[in-house]
Amino acid sequence: MTKKRAAILGSSGMIGQRFSHMLDGHPYFDVVAYCASDRSEGKRLSDIWKLPDIELNPSLGSKTITVTDAAALAKEGVEVVFSGLPSEVAGPVEDACAEAGLAVYSNASSHRTDPDTPILLPEINPDHLAAIEAQRQRRRKGGYIVTNANCSVTGLALGLKPLVDAFKFTDICVATYQALSGAGYPGVSSLDILGNVLPHIKSEEEKMGSEGRKILGGFSNGRFVDAPISIEASCARVATRDGHLEAVFIHHKDMPDADRIAKTLSEFRGRPQELGLPTAPLKPIIVRREQDRPQPKLDANAGEPARAKGMAVTVGRIRVGKDRLRFYLLVHNTIRGGAGGSVLNAELAYREGLI
Amino acid sequence: MTKKRAAILGSSGMIGQRFSHMLDGHPYFDVVAYCASDRSEGKRLSDIWKLPDIELNPSLGSKTITVTDAAALAKEGVEVVFSGLPSEVAGPVEDACAEAGLAVYSNASSHRTDPDTPILLPEINPDHLAAIEAQRQRRRKGGYIVTNANCSVTGLALGLKPLVDAFKFTDICVATYQALSGAGYPGVSSLDILGNVLPHIKSEEEKMGSEGRKILGGFSNGRFVDAPISIEASCARVATRDGHLEAVFIHHKDMPDADRIAKTLSEFRGRPQELGLPTAPLKPIIVRREQDRPQPKLDANAGEPARAKGMAVTVGRIRVGKDRLRFYLLVHNTIRGGAGGSVLNAELAYREGLI
Amino acid sequence: MTKKRAAILGSSGMIGQRFSHMLDGHPYFDVVAYCASDRSEGKRLSDIWKLPDIELNPSLGSKTITVTDAAALAKEGVEVVFSGLPSEVAGPVEDACAEAGLAVYSNASSHRTDPDTPILLPEINPDHLAAIEAQRQRRRKGGYIVTNANCSVTGLALGLKPLVDAFKFTDICVATYQALSGAGYPGVSSLDILGNVLPHIKSEEEKMGSEGRKILGGFSNGRFVDAPISIEASCARVATRDGHLEAVFIHHKDMPDADRIAKTLSEFRGRPQELGLPTAPLKPIIVRREQDRPQPKLDANAGEPARAKGMAVTVGRIRVGKDRLRFYLLVHNTIRGGAGGSVLNAELAYREGLI
Amino acid sequence: MTKKRAAILGSSGMIGQRFSHMLDGHPYFDVVAYCASDRSEGKRLSDIWKLPDIELNPSLGSKTITVTDAAALAKEGVEVVFSGLPSEVAGPVEDACAEAGLAVYSNASSHRTDPDTPILLPEINPDHLAAIEAQRQRRRKGGYIVTNANCSVTGLALGLKPLVDAFKFTDICVATYQALSGAGYPGVSSLDILGNVLPHIKSEEEKMGSEGRKILGGFSNGRFVDAPISIEASCARVATRDGHLEAVFIHHKDMPDADRIAKTLSEFRGRPQELGLPTAPLKPIIVRREQDRPQPKLDANAGEPARAKGMAVTVGRIRVGKDRLRFYLLVHNTIRGGAGGSVLNAELAYREGLI
Repeated sequence: MTKKRAAILGSSGMIGQRFSHMLDGHPYFDVVAYCASDRSEGKRLSDIWKLPDIELNPSLGSKTITVTDAAALAKEGVEVVFSGLPSEVAGPVEDACAEAGLAVYSNASSHRTDPDTPILLPEINPDHLAAIEAQRQRRRKGGYIVTNANCSVTGLALGLKPLVDAFKFTDICVATYQALSGAGYPGVSSLDILGNVLPHIKSEEEKMGSEGRKILGGFSNGRFVDAPISIEASCARVATRDGHLEAVFIHHKDMPDADRIAKTLSEFRGRPQELGLPTAPLKPIIVRREQDRPQPKLDANAGEPARAKGMAVTVGRIRVGKDRLRFYLLVHNTIRGGAGGSVLNAELAYREGLI
Repeated sequence: MTKKRAAILGSSGMIGQRFSHMLDGHPYFDVVAYCASDRSEGKRLSDIWKLPDIELNPSLGSKTITVTDAAALAKEGVEVVFSGLPSEVAGPVEDACAEAGLAVYSNASSHRTDPDTPILLPEINPDHLAAIEAQRQRRRKGGYIVTNANCSVTGLALGLKPLVDAFKFTDICVATYQALSGAGYPGVSSLDILGNVLPHIKSEEEKMGSEGRKILGGFSNGRFVDAPISIEASCARVATRDGHLEAVFIHHKDMPDADRIAKTLSEFRGRPQELGLPTAPLKPIIVRREQDRPQPKLDANAGEPARAKGMAVTVGRIRVGKDRLRFYLLVHNTIRGGAGGSVLNAELAYREGLI
Repeated sequence: MTKKRAAILGSSGMIGQRFSHMLDGHPYFDVVAYCASDRSEGKRLSDIWKLPDIELNPSLGSKTITVTDAAALAKEGVEVVFSGLPSEVAGPVEDACAEAGLAVYSNASSHRTDPDTPILLPEINPDHLAAIEAQRQRRRKGGYIVTNANCSVTGLALGLKPLVDAFKFTDICVATYQALSGAGYPGVSSLDILGNVLPHIKSEEEKMGSEGRKILGGFSNGRFVDAPISIEASCARVATRDGHLEAVFIHHKDMPDADRIAKTLSEFRGRPQELGLPTAPLKPIIVRREQDRPQPKLDANAGEPARAKGMAVTVGRIRVGKDRLRFYLLVHNTIRGGAGGSVLNAELAYREGLI
Repeated sequence: MTKKRAAILGSSGMIGQRFSHMLDGHPYFDVVAYCASDRSEGKRLSDIWKLPDIELNPSLGSKTITVTDAAALAKEGVEVVFSGLPSEVAGPVEDACAEAGLAVYSNASSHRTDPDTPILLPEINPDHLAAIEAQRQRRRKGGYIVTNANCSVTGLALGLKPLVDAFKFTDICVATYQALSGAGYPGVSSLDILGNVLPHIKSEEEKMGSEGRKILGGFSNGRFVDAPISIEASCARVATRDGHLEAVFIHHKDMPDADRIAKTLSEFRGRPQELGLPTAPLKPIIVRREQDRPQPKLDANAGEPARAKGMAVTVGRIRVGKDRLRFYLLVHNTIRGGAGGSVLNAELAYREGLI
């Protein structure tokens, strides 16, 4: 198959930079435009780079940022757009792209609740991709939007999927320890977080519930059907750079033992693993047996092979009590829970012939 | 009433320093000995001071540390001992003091599970003090040990008490964000916690369950009766100095609305408030209505008057869902959850004529 | 003497909040207006409070922020204005106040280089206050502006003053470890500083040289004469909240020994100590003999009595080598190096009959 | 040439782990023993791994730690030993190895002041290697010890070398911002460093002076001759993980302009570059022109190719004033300033036929 021409929107932001890195040398997509607002126009990627864990390669660093223009992108033969736009501005820009005939893979929340827009998480709900058919019909030139989920719910949903399927529980509580990169740049003031925890992240708890139900739910007869589960979250920001840690509590009668839980998680594979998608981790869920894992510093980048670093969720400290299961879970918030999520979505679509 | 002569054990540690500060100029107790192991013998309090938030007053700073010797303390007329010893060594030393006829108020966990030793939290279970009668009889010279609870469960139990009484639920989950001072000094390595979260604290989760049930339970016919509640905890260490933050989840049918919860918490008063104990906070539970409170940095020292700083628990973000109550709670781990807990215990005993 | 009616400009910022706290219950000044931009209009101080080390008293917290209006302030009988405005906007606003007849005590850099505006540091150059005479004449209604120095040079100049006078050196190098609060709020992004040091602070190094020379210089025949010294600085930001630490290197032949240096620093007193100004520290320079002091966490608030907390500079690790003196110095950047500096300036002026 | 069998001493520590990583798959050396004290005996490298920036490869992680035994190592055909032992214990252990005929490349300070032991820094003083001849003669079986320099002075000496050679100055001051990994593990208590700076590091300032003079000095007629320079340091610990930042001040008449300084630094090459040693960075000194570099987070790992990551020193903010040069310099303290230094030393010796 031939490579598709791609553009990145919001390429000056934290998610945009992850897109640039993850799509560099990608086997399916060829990024021809790095777009952002006119504030960054003309800058090179090396000027705006904020990811200390990534050594920016010189050829990527020299790319120049241009101003987003949907029509121009379409004219240049771009077929797929990766959007790392902040949710405040993403809505109309992504719509404009879709109307111009582009396939939009978005990290923004703006369209996640649209009735014909999937929140795609390929290991969980690859069938939701069918929803784009309706979009392609209503939009003038066959474009469409597919979103990835909120960073926190991405990790949670991945960790829950094999367990919900196997053990049929419905009642989940979760407390999060979320990293600073989740708030973008400049994001959280250092004066607010130095030696502190901030026990509130705007809209996060609501999203974890509603998006979780949509992702884990079905798609049939042209509509999404929420999963019959309750996710009650308490979300806090801590002084870590990358990787959202989550303390998960599940209530259920007849919970199996910890070994069976671990096995169920470890053996989980989904459609991306079946297809061997380039950014798919060989094992989407890694179970650690050590007492003090997962840790953001040590486990945020979990995932193999190299292209899938940060795409695996790590689960640890599985404890089963009476009617209760507890564990900690870690997800890289700007890779699996951000740019990487949309890259994997686009890879699935490419292989399904939808890009 | 006359002041009682007192000694502090473990006075070189984090809890010991809090004892020294809280008992400085205390109306009931007169500290005449600051004890520690021979490693600190002869040092002055100013040499070992590690509490940046406390300006050590010069007269206190000049006190000299001596080696613990139960018999000598008794001979010098000491009647009450405050123990900030690490749990690894506290057991036999505290026993020796009690056998020497001293009243021991301890922060260590060593004796918390003894069948005639109360885990006292005066707003909750002042009646548990009756348990010391059995101890005084079995010990040679009428001494006894009273413990305060583990730091995390102290805050949780205080926050739960008025709610459990009013609404009769039994099912509690809690995820903690615990401060560094809880691990003592030197405690957590900076290399482990810089930009990280450690999702495991030895024995902490077990203590929250077992101590919580004992504290919130009864004492009758000479024995402790556990409360019929389940507390399932997931405990993590974060890079804050003081103040354990806790995300609490309560499952219950017919949960009242958030305003009623807030009112129930705010209006709670216990025996220490009735008696006007010197270290008792006027309001043991402070409810914050802001979206982003409590925060360790802003709320750890909650409590009035001045002597009760750090003795109030702060509750915020009360959210009531279907069959579920969530809130965040903050407790100063080395004041209310440590030295201050035992000071308040001793104040109650003093007023009850037990010291 | 009667109290003077005062206003605070920029009262929503970090320096403004320090002004509010330091002027609360002040014996000379009565703050009647807390001003800021219209973005904060109508908010209470408790809504915008960002100083975790200060327990905001309820009566102060309930003060309402109003929009700055020089004419209105003058009409209400305000005589003195404390400006915590950011330097980008301070220039014209402070000028308007001075033109309206108000005495402006400013923390902003906007007017520090004006030829008839002193950078006042009362222990060092109380005679520079004479410069306002020229201002009062050129301005329509007798108002004037007096500035305090940049935070870093304030500490350095205080530490240098007694040494320069005694030992007549001219050649100073300094490397700084500056706190986050120096950049205001939200200031430094947490993503930039977590586990990092930023080796550049805009304009800081230049100010240390030029302001240092002006402060330590003379005022005669109506003009400022720079001190014949060189201050070469390298300024970096570190992850501390308050307190700029500075590594000072002085080159000089015939440097006396460390004890004499320590004695010279310790015994230094200035005009504020002579007059017993309310915010003057009894000892403006505190010398610590411990090996590991000063530390921001332990020493930023140095100064006695209570009203002078954060007004003393701490010096430690005095080492004298061949032709070289080295020491570390710490100054609270938003108290002595900020709001407190201007409060002390105004106190001096009040006692000199200039307010 | 054939690969030499090698052992690592102190392999459970921070430096030992860097050795293990840097020597994994090394073209000259084949590590056959990972030694440590009996406390770590039998553990695998994966059990003790503390380097979050390094993904431990499984084959390396499975290596088992054995107890150090010089004679046994010699018997197993080990010829070269890399010592990451703490200085408190290194002295006699390294001596025993040298006496057993082994070539010891050490990061410990124990032998740095020995009159026939070089502090080797191959870009600066490859001729100092000649000093081992005397050692081989006095030791029974022809073994010897070569040390690398203290972490802070390594970076400084590299940055100074081309400038001292070109511009002949003698007077250097330096203030450091040192990373936590420099203190080993567990090292600095999190309670000491959270939101703080510690302005004292034991013996560090003395070492910078004495080691700097030895390294930059000569070796002739069988003895080391100190360079005629003065290095006066003020050393502080900050909350960064890796990479010592240093503010350097040089006094000199007729200092050239910043561009010439930058060019002199950038173009510097030494013997390792000539020989193309595997761990030699192509450019030992990288000059950054941005205003806010070097930063520990962004620049600690500077150096190409992949094997030389962390081996280049980064210099930035070059400012030339009257008679004064200032710049910031960054060195990875456990790579170039630690294990990497000794690896490069051994590579040089291997190529010179001395191993």
